[in-house]
Amino acid sequence: MREKVLIYSRFPKAQMVRIGERYELLDASVKPPIETFTAEQLKQIRALITAGSQKIPPAILDTMPSLGAIICYGTGYDGVDLAEIKKRKIVLGNSPAANAAAVADLAMTLTLAVTRRLLTGDDYVRSGNWAASKPSPAMRPPLGMTGRKIGIYGMGEIGRKIAARCAAFETEVAYHSRSKHDVPYAYHPTLQALAEWADILMVAVRAGPDTQHIVNSDILKKLGANGVVINISRGSVIDQRALVAALENNVIAGAGLDVYEKEPHMPDALTVLPNVVLTPHIGGHTVESHVAMQDCVIANLSAFFAGKPLPYSVA
Amino acid sequence: MREKVLIYSRFPKAQMVRIGERYELLDASVKPPIETFTAEQLKQIRALITAGSQKIPPAILDTMPSLGAIICYGTGYDGVDLAEIKKRKIVLGNSPAANAAAVADLAMTLTLAVTRRLLTGDDYVRSGNWAASKPSPAMRPPLGMTGRKIGIYGMGEIGRKIAARCAAFETEVAYHSRSKHDVPYAYHPTLQALAEWADILMVAVRAGPDTQHIVNSDILKKLGANGVVINISRGSVIDQRALVAALENNVIAGAGLDVYEKEPHMPDALTVLPNVVLTPHIGGHTVESHVAMQDCVIANLSAFFAGKPLPYSVA
Repeated sequence: MREKVLIYSRFPKAQMVRIGERYELLDASVKPPIETFTAEQLKQIRALITAGSQKIPPAILDTMPSLGAIICYGTGYDGVDLAEIKKRKIVLGNSPAANAAAVADLAMTLTLAVTRRLLTGDDYVRSGNWAASKPSPAMRPPLGMTGRKIGIYGMGEIGRKIAARCAAFETEVAYHSRSKHDVPYAYHPTLQALAEWADILMVAVRAGPDTQHIVNSDILKKLGANGVVINISRGSVIDQRALVAALENNVIAGAGLDVYEKEPHMPDALTVLPNVVLTPHIGGHTVESHVAMQDCVIANLSAFFAGKPLPYSVA
Repeated sequence: MREKVLIYSRFPKAQMVRIGERYELLDASVKPPIETFTAEQLKQIRALITAGSQKIPPAILDTMPSLGAIICYGTGYDGVDLAEIKKRKIVLGNSPAANAAAVADLAMTLTLAVTRRLLTGDDYVRSGNWAASKPSPAMRPPLGMTGRKIGIYGMGEIGRKIAARCAAFETEVAYHSRSKHDVPYAYHPTLQALAEWADILMVAVRAGPDTQHIVNSDILKKLGANGVVINISRGSVIDQRALVAALENNVIAGAGLDVYEKEPHMPDALTVLPNVVLTPHIGGHTVESHVAMQDCVIANLSAFFAGKPLPYSVA
């Protein structure tokens, strides 16, 4: 008989096919599991799969007294209360680095699209304005990448991959993170200092209570009028209201965002801005990256049910 | 008295400011110069500035009997008849490599935007479809960059810079050009062989009669259903009608184009396609790149009027 695994977050069916071949999946799809399954069914659940940003309150954990493993599909696990699961002796797994290349690639996609005003350019062609030689202030030459100062906030697997890509664009790269790493980029001891130095701020830090709204109006002001903010981490790291205000008032030049404070919802004030490029949290969303994340989930579940330590373990 | 220089192509005024501080500019703005200036005025013209793709027929050259130098603003000079100017003892200058980084950056911008379906993603967010959880087949995970086979056609300054950027994205890079270069990428002796091998074809070759429509339906078919074509060279290199047909019929997956056969005009069949990203010939269009191109133009004009060889000479 196959082991039962609860699906706690909503995932596209295609992403669960390979996992479903190995385990009996009980899909709760975001709703509290007790609304979909009986208390008896939940009592048997020993492992669940979730998206890292999805909150799992203690009351939910109470409904699954046999739960021994929480497996995050992806890198993040900011929705999981580490103290709470430690108390309950629940182990926590994730898919570290499995999506790092895809996320770093999207960071570059957003950076280049913002700096080269790609959406404006495509619209200028498709609308016929180019053919009509219609003057467009938005088509004035922008600052390119050459010589730009790129500040990377967070130097984990994703931050490193962003740095390697940026270096190929003949830019200057520096970073800030809690501690200095053995990397060939200048270290700034504070985020303030990094923002003061940088033209483009790449948010690649792991989200948590300590990084909540850490990119605020003060940091944005330090970036300056040519400044660009790219966020592929979590929406919570940036004070979104302050970011919209900075973009509206040309305190900074633009932003490329893959993550938001209340996904998938966002204020109209953000979606009407011309100087932003917005993607629907697709950083790790490539064929290769999903396969790699599924590999991690399967390896973690398989080890857990065999009574072994998780190969991709967080806590 | 400042030397007179004819402006043969249409340039935004801002691009001629620094040159206009040094020379008296006679702006013909695309029209045959004799329509704007008298025969007497044109007789005094010893140098002209042009965009490389702009054709200069012998009849036009006949109106400027003192012409001794054609200075192209940019890298290309495909509009200039080399045999014809040799006969007339006119020297030809360009701005080699001045815009190479900006053009290579745009090649990457287009590549990433096409592979990660950036326009679709931005529209999915802004339209509210993401907030409404509206299913979208276009948002299925695409193939990412990791492990992709990138074929670069042309290994000049721009091709090399594209290759260096691609390598940072954990891809495999190979190339074809007339001759083998001392570069760390696999050489394919024919464009056919390169297209057979590659997933993404980057057109970075110098345009000329020998490359006219060289990327045809046969080459596109060889790229295959996951194939992507990026063109930052000249529109003439690709059979545009064959490209549109290949995109319409999913013979290839997508294209990113900065150049077209009859700029700024293009068929509706191209501009309605969802699987293309289109920019209005902005490859070299950055602040730094324009300054570097103007530096080359000024250095060339200054040497020419001093009776010295052009520092950035083509022929």
